[in-house]
Amino acid sequence: MSILFAAPGWDTSAWRARLEVLLPSHPVAIIGEPFDGAAIRYVLSWAHPPGALADLPNLAAIFSLGAGVDHLFADPALPDRPIVRVVDSDLRDRMSEWVVMHALVHLRQLRRYERQQRERAWADDDHQPKAGDIQVGVLGLGALGLDAATKLKTLGFKVAGWSATPKSARGIECFSGPGGLDVLLAQTDILVVLLPLTPATRGLLNASLFARLKKGGQLGGPVLINAGRGGLQIEADILAALESGILKGASLDVFEREPLPASSPLWSHPAVYVSPHNAAISAPAAVAAAIARQIEAFERGEPLRNVVDRTRGY
Amino acid sequence: MSILFAAPGWDTSAWRARLEVLLPSHPVAIIGEPFDGAAIRYVLSWAHPPGALADLPNLAAIFSLGAGVDHLFADPALPDRPIVRVVDSDLRDRMSEWVVMHALVHLRQLRRYERQQRERAWADDDHQPKAGDIQVGVLGLGALGLDAATKLKTLGFKVAGWSATPKSARGIECFSGPGGLDVLLAQTDILVVLLPLTPATRGLLNASLFARLKKGGQLGGPVLINAGRGGLQIEADILAALESGILKGASLDVFEREPLPASSPLWSHPAVYVSPHNAAISAPAAVAAAIARQIEAFERGEPLRNVVDRTRGY
Repeated sequence: MSILFAAPGWDTSAWRARLEVLLPSHPVAIIGEPFDGAAIRYVLSWAHPPGALADLPNLAAIFSLGAGVDHLFADPALPDRPIVRVVDSDLRDRMSEWVVMHALVHLRQLRRYERQQRERAWADDDHQPKAGDIQVGVLGLGALGLDAATKLKTLGFKVAGWSATPKSARGIECFSGPGGLDVLLAQTDILVVLLPLTPATRGLLNASLFARLKKGGQLGGPVLINAGRGGLQIEADILAALESGILKGASLDVFEREPLPASSPLWSHPAVYVSPHNAAISAPAAVAAAIARQIEAFERGEPLRNVVDRTRGY
Repeated sequence: MSILFAAPGWDTSAWRARLEVLLPSHPVAIIGEPFDGAAIRYVLSWAHPPGALADLPNLAAIFSLGAGVDHLFADPALPDRPIVRVVDSDLRDRMSEWVVMHALVHLRQLRRYERQQRERAWADDDHQPKAGDIQVGVLGLGALGLDAATKLKTLGFKVAGWSATPKSARGIECFSGPGGLDVLLAQTDILVVLLPLTPATRGLLNASLFARLKKGGQLGGPVLINAGRGGLQIEADILAALESGILKGASLDVFEREPLPASSPLWSHPAVYVSPHNAAISAPAAVAAAIARQIEAFERGEPLRNVVDRTRGY
């Protein structure tokens, strides 16, 4: 039985070579090339063309090649088979590097000091807060959110978290539900967003939410760090909140449209960091190995792990 | 008995007010104002004028207002009394924030992505290493070096350390002595320097040392992060190593001359971060409280802690 690699635009020959080493008994087909649909047992997808998986009668499971699965639900003809998310320590660690770096960059006013460097100006800030003065709120307490929260806490930040369903984590105050979200926002200086994109979270990062964040605070206003999905945010509201001072700054790795259009004012806003959706790249070696381990376990009769709940969408 | 506050250029009225609250039975004198030398029992110094402490017959101890004490030894007439270093968790945590931020900034190529943002260019690096691919070497395993090493390890970096005298630390490979330094350098991608400035360490960060760092590596060359003392480094050698590719980048908080002269090429080097010796500011509240606790304990008959070894100079 074959594997179908369905990630248009990716380096398919490298992925095919790697999968053939890891799973030598499974031929690898590539979307866009001819293949026998009846032979396909597993699909590895990143944003496959809608409808492309409709005629795979022996399909057993669909693996998402990244942490998110919203790209799969964009296909109205998605087969009703188990969907498996990548839960990979490599991707998780990279995400936390990016989140911790941006929390520190806002805390320590790196852009101010870079500007002073260009001006050859030697001057510091008598009122520099420390991490322990700052409350971070992490939206989303999956594998990524929990790891980022734990590492931020190690750096000294005060950390609380929120998730749709109740969670608990050692040393991190956890909130859930709409009431819990309001409590978390009201105390948050730095909002870190690592939520999945679902019908319930689409557009959540909007003017109404920003208005519920802590006012003022040690950073002079709250900071938004979104490394989840662009569909979570309303960029016009982010820009308006930055202009009105409701937000002090933002680090965004994801956008409503990607690549971010050249016309977006986010590119040139002095309080915004833009990165090209690379906070946590899926390292082919790590992701391929994680998927191969799952397939081998499944074929030994073990259940699939990290299966998506279709009713929740993640 | 009185306290002499001897830190020219600091906010002396704020310090005096704070000390009078913490130690109400000890009047506070200020260097540069008239005072009775025979009444002085303790000096709190940051770069006091040489000779200014020469005529204090009842002096019991000298407290340095920062982590370093090299500023005291710059006074050839320094009285032969115990010198106490500030060992303060606040200062330590701030230092680790700065060190971890700069390690991540070099790892994740922040300046590259900031440049791309200015150019409105959406492009990532297929070969982005992760922290676990990078070996950090920490020179100096005092309170600051050990804390930074531990936090870097939490972020996923491989971490080893070196100190003049043998040390051990859980999960961190520790080297000492000249032979140990060569071993550490040969494996180091990011060199973090948190050494004291002594006759043995002055000018240590020079062309010879840079040439012993790991060649190439996942970052394309080794990176220097110095938050110790400017006297540790030869800036002409740093610039030459950056030009020749022996160093890939540098983050410097300290300089041979401070403020860094406007004529220094370090200000404008694209691979250098300059900050104005503010990696770890001495927060007056925390430092004053730590010194007050020491004075109270000393007056109860307890020994002074964190006393400097004059033969080693730290």
